[in-house]
Amino acid sequence: MLKDSDFISSSKVPGPTKEEIRCLVMCKSNVKSTDTVLEIGCGTGGLTLEFARRCEKVYSIDKNHDAISLTSQNLKKHFLDDKVDLIEGDALSIINQIDSFDILMIGGSGGDLSEILEKFSEKISNKKKIIITAILIETKTEAINTLKKLGFEIEVVEVNIARGHILNRGTMMFAENPIAIIYTV
Amino acid sequence: MLKDSDFISSSKVPGPTKEEIRCLVMCKSNVKSTDTVLEIGCGTGGLTLEFARRCEKVYSIDKNHDAISLTSQNLKKHFLDDKVDLIEGDALSIINQIDSFDILMIGGSGGDLSEILEKFSEKISNKKKIIITAILIETKTEAINTLKKLGFEIEVVEVNIARGHILNRGTMMFAENPIAIIYTV
Amino acid sequence: MLKDSDFISSSKVPGPTKEEIRCLVMCKSNVKSTDTVLEIGCGTGGLTLEFARRCEKVYSIDKNHDAISLTSQNLKKHFLDDKVDLIEGDALSIINQIDSFDILMIGGSGGDLSEILEKFSEKISNKKKIIITAILIETKTEAINTLKKLGFEIEVVEVNIARGHILNRGTMMFAENPIAIIYTV
Amino acid sequence: MLKDSDFISSSKVPGPTKEEIRCLVMCKSNVKSTDTVLEIGCGTGGLTLEFARRCEKVYSIDKNHDAISLTSQNLKKHFLDDKVDLIEGDALSIINQIDSFDILMIGGSGGDLSEILEKFSEKISNKKKIIITAILIETKTEAINTLKKLGFEIEVVEVNIARGHILNRGTMMFAENPIAIIYTV
Repeated sequence: MLKDSDFISSSKVPGPTKEEIRCLVMCKSNVKSTDTVLEIGCGTGGLTLEFARRCEKVYSIDKNHDAISLTSQNLKKHFLDDKVDLIEGDALSIINQIDSFDILMIGGSGGDLSEILEKFSEKISNKKKIIITAILIETKTEAINTLKKLGFEIEVVEVNIARGHILNRGTMMFAENPIAIIYTV
Repeated sequence: MLKDSDFISSSKVPGPTKEEIRCLVMCKSNVKSTDTVLEIGCGTGGLTLEFARRCEKVYSIDKNHDAISLTSQNLKKHFLDDKVDLIEGDALSIINQIDSFDILMIGGSGGDLSEILEKFSEKISNKKKIIITAILIETKTEAINTLKKLGFEIEVVEVNIARGHILNRGTMMFAENPIAIIYTV
Repeated sequence: MLKDSDFISSSKVPGPTKEEIRCLVMCKSNVKSTDTVLEIGCGTGGLTLEFARRCEKVYSIDKNHDAISLTSQNLKKHFLDDKVDLIEGDALSIINQIDSFDILMIGGSGGDLSEILEKFSEKISNKKKIIITAILIETKTEAINTLKKLGFEIEVVEVNIARGHILNRGTMMFAENPIAIIYTV
Repeated sequence: MLKDSDFISSSKVPGPTKEEIRCLVMCKSNVKSTDTVLEIGCGTGGLTLEFARRCEKVYSIDKNHDAISLTSQNLKKHFLDDKVDLIEGDALSIINQIDSFDILMIGGSGGDLSEILEKFSEKISNKKKIIITAILIETKTEAINTLKKLGFEIEVVEVNIARGHILNRGTMMFAENPIAIIYTV
């Protein structure tokens, strides 16, 4: 797993997704070396790079020009740019261009989560995997309700991680913000 | 309960203890209006003020001049300074001066936790309450081991709180750092 | 604060609300000795008894006959039954009977949370307090969205508590299930 | 990652280590297909099987006959028994038999953690990895203090996971007990 500090980051772009969360997302995705991953909301590229290291092809979409640029820098830094197609734009308008993928990873949906899930679900066979990371309470509910409505069986985990800072006087724990991972099974 | 923002704070002094932790410490202490509280490590005065609002008398000790000064300012801001004696100095050397108290609250011990507990335990009858808040892993173990060795029955709770920030796009949860409360029962 | 073990409990009725959560709810409610509390979903009576110990009058509603019966037993056990009116029934149909209260506490709403909040909000002046405890992800979102829509300013805290079991070989932490407290400010 | 329910389990033996913790331990270990893993305290075999699926050879030690037997059953169930040597006995007395390993995984130490770390540290070059999972507060401190004393650079993460149960009325979160992962870097 890459360290958080391995990423070039920017105050204008969220992320990178913390190491422990990237680790759990990789486990939950069951990503294989032959898989194609479609990622919506790449941010700093935290999950993009992890998928790129493990699968055959990643398509990453983000509305935010700075996110695309930052993910591109991080891919180049780690020699993974040939594995990933970066697409600046709106997921809903790009759906028609992408036909074939094994894993749909949604890290950010710009308020369009339900619509994205509904449109993509037609392209998702039962063997495909959908994974959503949510830091907003409302996103958790929207993801759960929409996936249930679309007939998927799902699991939800909420993760609270604290990391120790080793000081002279002892080990002080610093909390990462809670995040939920919602995924089809 | 006072809000965190009700306190004057400083980057030089830890605290104030977060509202939710102050609330839990007050509950666990069973503080009564006739109680005298001895507090070691007052920091910003978070717990000092809460005890002062509920009991008869608080003695608060801190090695750190800035902590004593900041707690003093916060007491004055909330008109509680007549309830509290602030003592700048080392808890171990002040023990002999303080004979009578009902609750011993240790929020910071400057590395002397075991020694403080051992020295004060002679003055603590079974009816008295000891409460320790710990943000270091090592402090938790030291508190538990010393209190057990001194024959106290104890309880331990670890608390992870996240607070929601209400944004336009939803409710984002921000984690407070984990803290343990160790107390005699 | 009462201990969890101070309550008579039953596998048929949820609760009692854990001690630490009762403590935080009491703090967040700012309950005063002159207050009237209206509680919807009393369950085992955990919050009912805590409010009854601190305020003038509690009206507690629950659809579940076993909950009403269990809360009644717990009130009697702690000599608090003269403080509380227990009402078996549906909150929505009882609204018209209750005109005056200072705190609206919703611990369970039987799927009617939004409707309850909308109907009661007409009776709630700005000085009144609404508190909702939520163990379901969907309830958190519903509470937040409805209170925002009704024009209330709110705060949200999520609480993860673990309690230590003192074993011979050390202190093992057991987690309580996470709970959110949503309240008007 | 195997599911928790993929394991044969027993009330006499702790474990299996929860899926999310197994996932994080695998990430933190950086286990490679050519690695040899030495595991102390295999319990139900949760981590044993995950390492066996990813590395060349695992030696697993447990004092508890039932643990050895249960891990053996789980290895056979998943066709991994040829990858693992199970050794019933005391880690301290077996040290001399094992010379070569890349990862030392300690999931249970029967009260001998410091001594085990001290004895094994002579065999551990800087390139080797030590990972300890701790559910007792005291074990966390002992692991941190001993590894620091032996000159290792370490990291600590504490993990609180809650899993959603999808009910008709919504998604109820159930907490797993907190666990710390302490590892050399």
